[in-house]
Amino acid sequence: MNTRPTLTLGLAGLGTVGSGLVRLLRENTEELRQRSGCEFRLKTVAVRDASRERDLPAGTRLTTDPAELARDPDIDVVVELMGGVTTAKQLITASLDNGKHVVTANKALLAEDGTDLFRQAGEKKTALLYEASVAGGIPVVQTLKDSLAGNRILSIEGILNGTSNFILSEMTSRGMDFATALRGAQENGYAEADPTLDIDGFDTAHKLVLLVRLAWGLDYPYTSMPVQGIRNLDRMDIDFAREFGYRVKLLGRARLTGEGKVEAGVFPTLVNHTYLLARVGGAFNAIRIEANAVGSLFLHGPGAGSLPTASAVLGDIVSIARRAHLLNSGFVQQVLPPASVQPAAEARSTCYLRFMVKDNPGVLRDLSGALADHGVSIAQAMQKERSENGVPLVLMTHEASAQAVRDAIADMLRADFLLAPAVCYRVMG
Amino acid sequence: MNTRPTLTLGLAGLGTVGSGLVRLLRENTEELRQRSGCEFRLKTVAVRDASRERDLPAGTRLTTDPAELARDPDIDVVVELMGGVTTAKQLITASLDNGKHVVTANKALLAEDGTDLFRQAGEKKTALLYEASVAGGIPVVQTLKDSLAGNRILSIEGILNGTSNFILSEMTSRGMDFATALRGAQENGYAEADPTLDIDGFDTAHKLVLLVRLAWGLDYPYTSMPVQGIRNLDRMDIDFAREFGYRVKLLGRARLTGEGKVEAGVFPTLVNHTYLLARVGGAFNAIRIEANAVGSLFLHGPGAGSLPTASAVLGDIVSIARRAHLLNSGFVQQVLPPASVQPAAEARSTCYLRFMVKDNPGVLRDLSGALADHGVSIAQAMQKERSENGVPLVLMTHEASAQAVRDAIADMLRADFLLAPAVCYRVMG
Repeated sequence: MNTRPTLTLGLAGLGTVGSGLVRLLRENTEELRQRSGCEFRLKTVAVRDASRERDLPAGTRLTTDPAELARDPDIDVVVELMGGVTTAKQLITASLDNGKHVVTANKALLAEDGTDLFRQAGEKKTALLYEASVAGGIPVVQTLKDSLAGNRILSIEGILNGTSNFILSEMTSRGMDFATALRGAQENGYAEADPTLDIDGFDTAHKLVLLVRLAWGLDYPYTSMPVQGIRNLDRMDIDFAREFGYRVKLLGRARLTGEGKVEAGVFPTLVNHTYLLARVGGAFNAIRIEANAVGSLFLHGPGAGSLPTASAVLGDIVSIARRAHLLNSGFVQQVLPPASVQPAAEARSTCYLRFMVKDNPGVLRDLSGALADHGVSIAQAMQKERSENGVPLVLMTHEASAQAVRDAIADMLRADFLLAPAVCYRVMG
Repeated sequence: MNTRPTLTLGLAGLGTVGSGLVRLLRENTEELRQRSGCEFRLKTVAVRDASRERDLPAGTRLTTDPAELARDPDIDVVVELMGGVTTAKQLITASLDNGKHVVTANKALLAEDGTDLFRQAGEKKTALLYEASVAGGIPVVQTLKDSLAGNRILSIEGILNGTSNFILSEMTSRGMDFATALRGAQENGYAEADPTLDIDGFDTAHKLVLLVRLAWGLDYPYTSMPVQGIRNLDRMDIDFAREFGYRVKLLGRARLTGEGKVEAGVFPTLVNHTYLLARVGGAFNAIRIEANAVGSLFLHGPGAGSLPTASAVLGDIVSIARRAHLLNSGFVQQVLPPASVQPAAEARSTCYLRFMVKDNPGVLRDLSGALADHGVSIAQAMQKERSENGVPLVLMTHEASAQAVRDAIADMLRADFLLAPAVCYRVMG
């Protein structure tokens, strides 16, 4: 018997993100149940070509008319992942009008034409959620909307376009020129056939308009934003910047001036190499928020891609499912089951070992023998100069269980090899 | 006329975080109104010594009996910031019992004894929120609870104790031994007089228990967690680790094994220097979450301190204030006012300029003259070898307005100095 409430979804668009969402609804069903107390039912999917074979849950309808989602009284939440402005706006307007909740990843629509939609959602008291529209899987919308609600936001700086960052990373680390790096991005699926929105900075500008709205509750007119992309970036400037200690990044930046004006823009920017923002490589996104209470916050993650973006869409859907609930633990069950604890001795890890030994011939052989006896093999070894406490012998092992390392050390103690207790730390990466 | 609803707060504890909260309630009043639609009234503060002078809003009562907060029917939310386990638990239990919402930063209590409290809150349908209890100002509780609700969490790795990280950073960058670095941390206010909880890893373990609960909905018994601190860490191992390309960090790590067991523990760990976690310096905290939809997410920010921790407390209070509301924009106003846009030309920035010039004497003088005419002064200059398009002359300016730089370049164009369009990028840091 299934007594869980059901949340019925209509999905418009079955491209990269839409099919990622379908996959997550299937693969993470159990997690979604535990976290929302709901069953999610995907009733209808609107696509451009209904004749193509699709991998959809049994019973899911296909339609070529998105407006059907807005009309269907069964559907609770319309998920708009088709992109574009005109049809998407019609769908969202009609859906809100019929009292449905809407989840969208459409930054262009919300940035260029969001005011009406938010007003409409406010009047209808329905949700219009859009975590996926800025920085893919990074929860920056929720962070600004909820977590930092007690802050005065001072500034926002972000690498908000994965394609541009991938191109800049390739130009920087592999010495490519722009055209070659762009071709590589296209071959890797990071860049569209028409990369204009990405490399000319407009995609970043769309996202920045949304961040300004979240940070200061102000509607920044998209067409007023100064935007400079990376299309004309010469590799020579990347090299010169590096000589000064900087990396070139395409940054969206916004801050509130002392006079209450919003200074915002998108520019190729030299970022000091010691900053975390300078370390953001490949197609990743990152955002740095400066605020008067929290100080400085830095969020880093995948800015695009099927599953990461669908992760953000699904987070919004779950928050709609949970609306009436109060989940302190994040799970429906108020009393959580006990964890089955993995014994520490069974944990496997690469290990750093340091022994203080006598300066005798054969000591490395004896030590590594003790390790080998317990199946611990050595990846790297380093013998250092004698100190007052003996000769430091440093080893990095291959992956081994904590128990095996402990047993090997016990053998060494019995054999009286060690002048001081062995040092053992785990290694990551 | 004030028609806003009022949320009445009772605060227990006026130490570092408590006084930060009082300060934020005063300084960010306008932001809080816009974001919650509520007035926040601090009615009563429970302190140990009521005779000391306190800087509190007019009309705030002082008491030495925390239980008074739980009893007072006016109080909607009890904020527990006194720490310790026994009295804090009594206060929270009594508050929940009386149907009050509770916000706490008490990781020790929630980790060692949270099960009953969460059950009680669930039965009473009241909020028991604790964003401030893990990693200070970093919104990791909300990220796990809400944003990643559609994910299967695979692993969590965190630098969760600022004191330990400060000590390790000092040992690494300044070659200090442990005892000296600890003294420095104490003198800087980062470490308590009794630093046991921090440096022996128990504070990290408390936080990790809370993260395990949020990630997998499982109660991990605090006393089962393997914990190794940094008290006995020898500087020599930091140096050897560095030779292998690693930084030593105190990490809390948890993952779900293939058999559904939770493997968790706190250990000094060698982290590959290319990882963002290895770059976390000073008293900062950071968390890396690996999940099956989002991939890898990295959050970095202040892990402790008065205002950052109070920021997290306040985020929880706002979410209670908003419970009945649906704020798509994060602001009460559904139609946002237009931003006053700072003209791009007025934006001030350090600039990177690159000119292609003829190989003539005096060209640097003429160029820098054109810049000086518009008040743009030069911080660094570099003349590079001639390329096919002329001699690259690279300048880093001091801060200047975009307009001044643009005007100077226009002068250069008129004077026919340049063999190619000037390149101008902004600089951060």
